[in-house]
Amino acid sequence: MNDILHLTLLFDFYGELLTEKQKQVFSLHYQDDLSLSEIGEELSISRQAVRDLLKRTEKILLDYEQKLGLVARFQEQKKSVRQMLEIMQDLEIDGLSEKRMRQIETMKEIAQAILS
Amino acid sequence: MNDILHLTLLFDFYGELLTEKQKQVFSLHYQDDLSLSEIGEELSISRQAVRDLLKRTEKILLDYEQKLGLVARFQEQKKSVRQMLEIMQDLEIDGLSEKRMRQIETMKEIAQAILS
Repeated sequence: MNDILHLTLLFDFYGELLTEKQKQVFSLHYQDDLSLSEIGEELSISRQAVRDLLKRTEKILLDYEQKLGLVARFQEQKKSVRQMLEIMQDLEIDGLSEKRMRQIETMKEIAQAILS
Repeated sequence: MNDILHLTLLFDFYGELLTEKQKQVFSLHYQDDLSLSEIGEELSISRQAVRDLLKRTEKILLDYEQKLGLVARFQEQKKSVRQMLEIMQDLEIDGLSEKRMRQIETMKEIAQAILS
């Protein structure tokens, strides 16, 4: 997983443990894609202050994951669900009764909802 | 879910955010099933101090879940996996080719591993 995607996932999990300022800077940078200078202008602080705040926020998120490992735990579950989904897709290849097709369809929808 | 099971799950998820003392009291009470008095003797503090520490620890765990909701999110996923598992069990009822039976068996093992 690339670093930005990983950080975004960590933010999704642990973001509520950050201060408002940390949340704001993280989300302006990683979600709204603003540069450090642009965020600095927006918040009337220096580019360097934004950089420090962002680095500190990233470190806090990484520390939470190191302690709790819940993002990794979720990712593991999703990996298992993807494996099941592949088998479901394979199961469908040749003709099955309509009832079974519907059952497999229902399972696939449940699996896809977990993965979405 | 009963309160003790819920607290134990919260501890499993967020326990690493507690202090050593909080972890110790929680686990002596809820995992080793010691009474408040017994814990007090073990740690050389009053029964009331144990009670306060325990209440405070429970509140911290509940506050984390209120902020992050990750236990609820996991429980939701498990519920979905249980639904899939029920369909898998139903799928097996009448005769399927050996290959398909094996595929369903594999899916069931994956689902059960998630639920265990």
